Formats: sequence, C-alpha cells, structure tokens
Amino acid sequence: MNSIELSKLLGGKIEIKSKKKLTERTLPILYTPGVAEVSKAIAKNKKLVFEYTIRKNTVAVVSDGSAVLGLGNIGPEAALPVMEGKALLFKELAGVDAIPIVLAKQDTEEIIKIVKAIAPTFGGINLEDISAPRCFEIEERLKKELDIPVFHDDQHGTAIVVLAGLINALKVVKKDIKRVKIAISGLGAAGTSVIKLLIKYGAKNIVVSDSKGIIYRYREGISEVKRKISKMTNPENIKGKLTDALAGADVFIGVSAPNLIEAEDIRKMNKDAIVFAMSNPIPEIMPEEAKRGGAKIIATGRSDYPNQINNVLAFPGIFRGALDTRTRMITDEHKIKAARAIAGLVKNPNYGKIIPRALDRKVAEKVARVFYTN
Amino acid sequence: MNSIELSKLLGGKIEIKSKKKLTERTLPILYTPGVAEVSKAIAKNKKLVFEYTIRKNTVAVVSDGSAVLGLGNIGPEAALPVMEGKALLFKELAGVDAIPIVLAKQDTEEIIKIVKAIAPTFGGINLEDISAPRCFEIEERLKKELDIPVFHDDQHGTAIVVLAGLINALKVVKKDIKRVKIAISGLGAAGTSVIKLLIKYGAKNIVVSDSKGIIYRYREGISEVKRKISKMTNPENIKGKLTDALAGADVFIGVSAPNLIEAEDIRKMNKDAIVFAMSNPIPEIMPEEAKRGGAKIIATGRSDYPNQINNVLAFPGIFRGALDTRTRMITDEHKIKAARAIAGLVKNPNYGKIIPRALDRKVAEKVARVFYTN
Repeated sequence: MNSIELSKLLGGKIEIKSKKKLTERTLPILYTPGVAEVSKAIAKNKKLVFEYTIRKNTVAVVSDGSAVLGLGNIGPEAALPVMEGKALLFKELAGVDAIPIVLAKQDTEEIIKIVKAIAPTFGGINLEDISAPRCFEIEERLKKELDIPVFHDDQHGTAIVVLAGLINALKVVKKDIKRVKIAISGLGAAGTSVIKLLIKYGAKNIVVSDSKGIIYRYREGISEVKRKISKMTNPENIKGKLTDALAGADVFIGVSAPNLIEAEDIRKMNKDAIVFAMSNPIPEIMPEEAKRGGAKIIATGRSDYPNQINNVLAFPGIFRGALDTRTRMITDEHKIKAARAIAGLVKNPNYGKIIPRALDRKVAEKVARVFYTN
Repeated sequence: MNSIELSKLLGGKIEIKSKKKLTERTLPILYTPGVAEVSKAIAKNKKLVFEYTIRKNTVAVVSDGSAVLGLGNIGPEAALPVMEGKALLFKELAGVDAIPIVLAKQDTEEIIKIVKAIAPTFGGINLEDISAPRCFEIEERLKKELDIPVFHDDQHGTAIVVLAGLINALKVVKKDIKRVKIAISGLGAAGTSVIKLLIKYGAKNIVVSDSKGIIYRYREGISEVKRKISKMTNPENIKGKLTDALAGADVFIGVSAPNLIEAEDIRKMNKDAIVFAMSNPIPEIMPEEAKRGGAKIIATGRSDYPNQINNVLAFPGIFRGALDTRTRMITDEHKIKAARAIAGLVKNPNYGKIIPRALDRKVAEKVARVFYTN
C-alpha cells in the first residue's frame, strides 16, 4: 500500500483516545460536576496544569507550510499529512502526545502571536517546516516569550543528528574536530544550526557556501543571518564556489539541493574524506558517485543506503526529556549531550555504521536522559 | 476515586494514538519519503485534506477560560481539564477526535484571528465556555469567515436539548408551544440561544428576565443583544421581576443562578407547570421545592434527579453529522431537527421521563442523521 492509499483508508494517521472508559459512574468524575474541583485547584495554582492535564505530555507540532520537505511553500493543508506523520513518530518512539497545528498565516509576527496564544494547552512547541529566515526570528522570540521549551526541528534536530554522525565518523578516520576543514553547502534552517552547533562542539575551520558561492566577510547583498555566519566561519576568507571550498576539506556536509557535486569534486578533498549528502530524497551527490571520488564515509538522509541521518533520532527523546523534567529551555549543551548519547549507541563505529538505525527504540530514552543529568 | 485523584493518576484524560504501527516497512509510507505524494496531491486539490488527513474527523474545542462551568473567568489553564472532558465525550459518544485548545487571549478580535489561523487543521470548531456577549460576535464572525462548521455549545447545545425536553414536556401536559407563556431567567450565552430557538420553533409568548428584572422594550442601559431580545419577546411589554414573569406562565426555564425562586413563585404559574431549573450544580429551585409549589414536570442539569438536560445529548451527534456530510453551516433547521430526534428517542414521555439518559448511545447517531437527510 502506498501513502495515498493509506491516507484514503485511514483518513489521518493519528486519533484521540480516551484514557478512561465513559460510564454513568465515571461521567461525573471525568466531566461535570467533578471536573470543577480540578479547575479550581489549577485556578489557585497554575503549575498544577502540568500535573493534572494533557499539558504534562503534549507538544504542538506547528507549521505554516512554507518549507515542507523538499516541496517548498505548499501551504498548511498540504503540510498536514507531514505533521501527522511527525506526531505518530513522537508517540511511537517516545510516548509524547503531539498535536499537528497548521497555520493559515505566514507572517512572522502573526505566527509568534498565534503560537503564544495557544501555548497554554501545550507542554512544548515543535516548530516544523517554516522557511528561513523567518524560522530564526520565530524560534528566538518564542523561546524568550514562552515558559515552555520551543524547538525548531529542521534546525536543531538536524544539527544534533549530524553532530552525532560526525562524532563517530571522525572516530573512524581518527581525525580531530578541532583540526578538520569542513565544507558545508546550504544556509537554510538546517545549515545555520549545523554550523553553530559544530562550532560550539569545537570546529575551527568551516567554509560555507550558498547557491551563490562561498560566504566570506564583506560579501555584498547577504542577509543579516548570513553576515553573522560569515564572521564565525571561513577563517582564511576564501572566495569562490562550493567546489573551491571542497579543495583540501576533510568533511563535506550538504543540506542544500540535489546533484550539486561529482566524484571529481570529492577527489579534491583530503584523504579519508567524510561526505554527508543530506538533500532528500536526492542527495548532493549519490553515494556510489561519492565512493568513486574516494570518500571514506558516506551518509545521506535516505533509508536505502547505510548511515541514514534522520531527525527522528533526536526530536522524540528531546521532548520526552524536556517534558519529564519541565525543562524550560533546550540549550546547546543539551544538544551536544544528545548528539553524544546518540553516537554512543553505536558500539563499534565503522565506515558503514556511524549512526543508530532510525527506529532504534533505545535512542529516545538515552536522549531523554540528557535532561535528567543536567 | 475523585476527579483530582484521577487527574493526578492519568495526567490528562485523553491521549494521541497512532492508527498504524510504526515499523521499518511502514516508516517510509507514514512519513518521508512517501508522505510527499500525499502533500503534493493536497497542494494540487485542497479539498483532499478532508479525505487524506485528520481534518476529516477532527474538531477543535476552543476556550479562553472566561466563563468556565459556574466558576467564571478562571483562565485557560484552569479551563483545560473541562475541555479534555469534552474531548473525551466527543470520542466516546460519536467517534469524533476533539482537541482542546485553550487560549491565552480574551480579546474578541484576537480570538477570531487565532481560531481562523489554526482552522486548517480542523474539520470543525466547537467554541466552549467563552463569556457573553463576546461569544456572540466571535461565533457569528467565525461562521461567516470560515468554511467549516462553528458551534458554540453553551449556546446551541443547550438550546437543542432544552427544546428536546420541552417538546416532550408539552406533549405530556398536552399544551401547544404556540399558546404557552414561557418565563426565562438568564440572558447569557445559553438563555439567548434558547430564546431564539424556541421562537423559531413557534413560541409566541416568552418573558425573559436578567439579574435586574424583566427585559422590556426601551428598558434603559441594556446591551445591543438584550435590546434585540426585548423586541422578540414580552409581547405585553410587562415590567417587574422574575416572579412577576412567572405569574400565569406555563413554562419556566432557568439558565441563570442558584436558588432564585421558591415554591411560592411556582404556585403563581398555570396548571401543569413545567420547570426547567438548569443552573448547575445548584438549580434556580430545587426539584423538591418546585414540586411543593405544584410543578408537574421538573428538569435540571443534574444527574441525580430525573430529566437531566445535558448538552452531551447534542454536541457529539451534531459534529458527527456535520463532519460526515461536510456541512459548512449548522442552521436553526438542523438544531430543531436534532431536538426532535432527541425527543423522539423517548418512547412514552411522562413527567419523570422527558429526555433520554445523558449516555444513551443511540442519541448521537440519531442526531447525526439529521445532517444526512437535509
């Protein structure tokens, strides 16, 4: 059965389930008049909402449909099946009750207002498939203005899993994060967060390129976000194209577009090259081609090749841990610890196995534990 | 176990359930890459969102916490357990997936904006426990501006069930809706809708009183809503207090406050008086007292007396029917037919049995059928 057939059959991939059977006996406890006691208790002490209601275990998966998968700005209705899938993963992998909320608005300020207004229902907010650069402002502001965790998965989920894979890949080729040169293609939501987290983790030499070439200081006509990135990266201030960035690089990380580079470009990289080509479903370079170019370790976003870099390794456990511990803010420290936890689940990393399987049921629990030990 | 103990134990009365098991085999169908086909299909033809996603069967239960049960403006957090209970009833009685959304905003325009913004997720909007008169404007505007059904249960759910009970009560005492005098106490959300629906159904002589006494034409200092009501009711333009309205009345309907009237007041009513005292949990007059005053048929909102007037007889079936038939607007005709359907389920109405039991499992299906036959 394909996805459309399944959607037709199910009419949505998730449903509501009652935790208690409704009978003449339970009705006055579940609803009026008994529920009034619960309401009064919460009215007196608002914190009890995190103990007595769904808020304890419920996350909103919020999207405006502006950057859905590789499909672009297809709107809220078309984004809904993706958010449902995400909600299903939340429940199956970490027991989190996630509720898709797709928005008819794409204005930054309005989205911030709306999410703040509906927040009292939720214990956390997972932002999803909101296009850059609006996603940065929306996430930053909501983090400041809400007292529940806010996490843009396209940014930070990706960054955590990339770092997890890279930790093991570097172990396999015996290179040090502080000494490697990393070429990154793509400066959307994912790219930006990957860069920041790698720097936090110790990377010193990252060269980034967007669709117009390498980001360097004083490049004209670039956004404020890219201006900031130009100051954090490219220590030699080199100019040119992505392929110029690849010359002498130890690591390539693609979070951009299909078929950007060829075996020839990989050949310019250092020995034991690590290639994470994560444009999905068609990577920046196909694994066979990367191998032909001499890449030692190859990862993609696909399930049909080894080393799948999949956000599903991060977000369920992140929210499981944050909800359980009532963590208000998911920090870079949490993210790095989560990446280490994921990497640590691969007993003997080797070129064909740097990351756990996407559905490895041990992962979410390990990631959640990061929040307990803080 | 009481409600607080149950809330502590469950941490919320509803949860998310996956409709399909997550495995290595189902992952690419439920989520990426397969889900992209579903998104593309909906992007091409937006109507498919009502077939392929949770929107087909999902309703938002929206409250700003401004008029919760009899507790007043206790805020969104304290309203959440009530909305959860409602969601549980939706599922258990009609298979509708209802999602509580409690709002941090109480401004009319902002609530309208927020509900419109989140609407693409939902197949219908159930407004709940929003105080009058804001609830009227909010519902009216949303009905106009959204293409899914919007239903303020405190207004129309109550009106439907009151009418259902009254149809049978009048049958028992052999009186005609067109000839009875009806005294109503309370002009909030429920009272206003009850009055309008009774008039639609044929009532000619309704006298309403609020906390300041009878509503008559040109009474000073009354709101626009009450001004309109003054033109639809009180044909003899009488003035005075609720007890003056009761003199010579055949029916009393209370949707107001506890302990407003006494046996003495009921004695002023006509023979075979019908008393619906629905302030909850403490009625306008206790059934024993009303009986002492000579009332023939007595109904309350309570489950521990006969003839419980409970909204739960209406809203699950209303949304079941509206969702199944993709009905855009719930009309007065739907409401009257629903009331007749509910009344019709009582085979031989008598003074102790004018309405089905609150959890009668046949009711929702009968009410839903109203939408099919339109």
